[in-house]
Order: sequence, then structure tokens, then C-alpha cells
Amino acid sequence: MAKQKISAVPSIRRLPSYLHIIRQSKEDGSEYISGTVIAQELHLEPIQVRKDLAITGIVGKPKKGYPVIALMAAIEHFLGWDEVQPAVLIGAGNLGTALSGYPEFQYHGLQICAAFDQDPSKVGKSIHGVPVFSLETLKIQVKNLGASIAILTLPSSSAQEVTNKLVEAGITAIWNFTNVKLNVPENVIVQKEDLTSGYAMLCVMMNARKHGAS
Amino acid sequence: MAKQKISAVPSIRRLPSYLHIIRQSKEDGSEYISGTVIAQELHLEPIQVRKDLAITGIVGKPKKGYPVIALMAAIEHFLGWDEVQPAVLIGAGNLGTALSGYPEFQYHGLQICAAFDQDPSKVGKSIHGVPVFSLETLKIQVKNLGASIAILTLPSSSAQEVTNKLVEAGITAIWNFTNVKLNVPENVIVQKEDLTSGYAMLCVMMNARKHGAS
Repeated sequence: MAKQKISAVPSIRRLPSYLHIIRQSKEDGSEYISGTVIAQELHLEPIQVRKDLAITGIVGKPKKGYPVIALMAAIEHFLGWDEVQPAVLIGAGNLGTALSGYPEFQYHGLQICAAFDQDPSKVGKSIHGVPVFSLETLKIQVKNLGASIAILTLPSSSAQEVTNKLVEAGITAIWNFTNVKLNVPENVIVQKEDLTSGYAMLCVMMNARKHGAS
Repeated sequence: MAKQKISAVPSIRRLPSYLHIIRQSKEDGSEYISGTVIAQELHLEPIQVRKDLAITGIVGKPKKGYPVIALMAAIEHFLGWDEVQPAVLIGAGNLGTALSGYPEFQYHGLQICAAFDQDPSKVGKSIHGVPVFSLETLKIQVKNLGASIAILTLPSSSAQEVTNKLVEAGITAIWNFTNVKLNVPENVIVQKEDLTSGYAMLCVMMNARKHGAS
């Protein structure tokens, strides 16, 4: 099932940025928000925004737009962000520490409850309030914590070995920041994150500007 | 021009992962690689891979696939990764430090030549060999370095103020890791990075598995 095709990947990727704008609009006291307003904020086409939002099952009202509270709830429910997801962080280096303190995650149900590292100088300390344990204790701790998600921010060289242990401990979803393509059983989901992907976008836009393309 | 539409965004986002596989194939001594092999590695459809690669202008040979060296060159040229891009990093915290040591960047022409931070305890030190300067010296240093790209990994609260200074100093491309929508002149490109976007994908896959969708 991990290999199943998820349709509408670009739409799903855009939903968090919509949610951010809708939340701000709610904080500003708005009851309704239109697809056109969201589109303008993000330099997208209104039709695109409406199509993306439709995958969450919500329907806007002509002239008024979407009711803000219902729209937030629909997106959060579609993404599963209305449930708490206990997660473990593997690798308490700079990237892991940055993720453990990333303010947006608190809105999205992602609860990093423990970090693991092989560096003895980090073990026993905490990063943004998250306790750091020894990698040696990984299997027993993951079972005790009931975590379902593991976030991999460890060196690529040990990514597969640690993944095997995580799978044995019952982890079924991996958010992979290493550049290793992990081998996992069919029932384990892997989302691979590639930080160079956004850099590629930036470069292509720079190229287009240089060559005057539009 | 910053607001111009770039077509084929999902294709562009996939190119770095193709490049990674093609480079490994080259290191393994292969002369040719087929779209089908790349597709299998990444659990994509072969037709999708061939369509994505076509945007770089390269054409595969029937039965043989793509010549590895020419394919790498075509992708790198399309992305502008065959040129060195001097960049400055704004914010030498955990995320900034992680990016400054990100091994993939060295292949892609991204040369982080200086970092800036407002914390006096960081100024004068270096992160992964990149010297950290005071934010006070931003404008003069950016001009001296001839950097065109700025990577924003500073707290969101000061993102717009620092952006204004960067634009005055001649920066025309910003890779924005804060959650602020920056106001910039028309000629400045902004690529906003949202780390929750990949988490959204992971959650939707988890939901689909839970509900047995395919």
C-alpha cells in the first residue's frame, strides 16, 4: 500500500499555505474568505485554488466564498491534522533540532515526543523541550511511546540500518530527510524530502528572468 | 517578472531526484539509463519521467535510453546548476547551520559564502566553514561579495525588515524558509519553502492507508 498512487500531489502540497492564510484571516476576524483572495496572496489562479480546495470536500458560496472556520476544519480533517500524531526524531543534529522547534508543527498535530542520537554528548539533554535518548534504546522506547511516525534527520550512511530497527519497533510512516532511498515493507509509508527541490525552482525562475521568458 | 508563471512546477521539483539517481548510475559505470529504470527507483510512471526529462530538451534512444553524461549535463544546464551561484545565509541558527552543511548543494553550484546573524556570540565564528558576520554589516558585505541569492533562515518577525535591506544591497533572488509572505519589488524572485508541505503528503498517505483507498 505504501506504493499506492496519491492523486493531486501538487494540490495537497499547496493546502498548508492556504491553511496559513485562512488562519490569519480568521485571526483578523473574517467570517468568509474567497478563493480569489487566497489566490492573490499566493500569486495563483483563482480556479486553481478552488479546484485544490474541492479535494477537501468543501463548497464555497457564490459571492461570499468559504466560511473560514468550516474551511479550516475541512482542510485539517483532509490532512489528518485534527488528530495528534506522536512522532520520534532520529538525529538530534542541526536539522533535527530545527524541526523540533518548528513553530508550524504545533498547529498540525505533529507531536515530537522523543529524539534519538548516537552522540553520547547529546543523550540526556533536550532540544526545544524534546528529550534526547541513545540510539541503543530505540526499539524499546519507540514501542513504549506508541509513536507511528519517525522523522529521519540522521547521517545518510546509517539511514537504512536505523530504518530496519524502526520498522521492527512498529513505525509505519517515515519522513525521510536523508538522501537515501529506503527499503521498507509494503505497509510502511515513506515521504522523502529533498531540500534541493525548492532550490531547483528558484534557479529555474532565475533562468527564466535572465532569458526574458514569461 | 517575479510574478511570472513557471510551467511544469511538479516536473521541475522532480528533476533533482532524477539527477541523484543518474549520478549514482554514472558512478556505477553505466553509459545509458532508461526512463523506466528511473521511474522504478522513484515509484513513478515511465511516461511521467520521460515527459519530465523532455523539458530539458534531451531525447532518449529507443531501447538504450538516455546517455548518462549528456542527460546529467542537460538537467544541470536546465536548472542553471552548471554555474556557481554565490549566496548569503541570513540566520545562523539550527536550520541555517544545517543548510550550510547540506552535502547536496556542492553539486548544484550553490556556494554559501557568508552567513549573517544578530546574535553577537555567533558573529566571528563559522558554520561548516562559512564565516558568520553581524547583521549590521549586511548591506556593505552583500555588495562586496557580489551575492545574488539570499537564503532566509532567520526568525519570521524580522524577515521583512531584513529583506528590504537585502533588496537595497542588490539581492534579486530569495529562498525564504520563514513563514512570512515577503513584499519585494517586481524584479526580485522569491521561492518560499514550507516544510509542512511534505508533512501534508505523509499525512494524506497515512489517511489513504487507514481508509484502504488506492
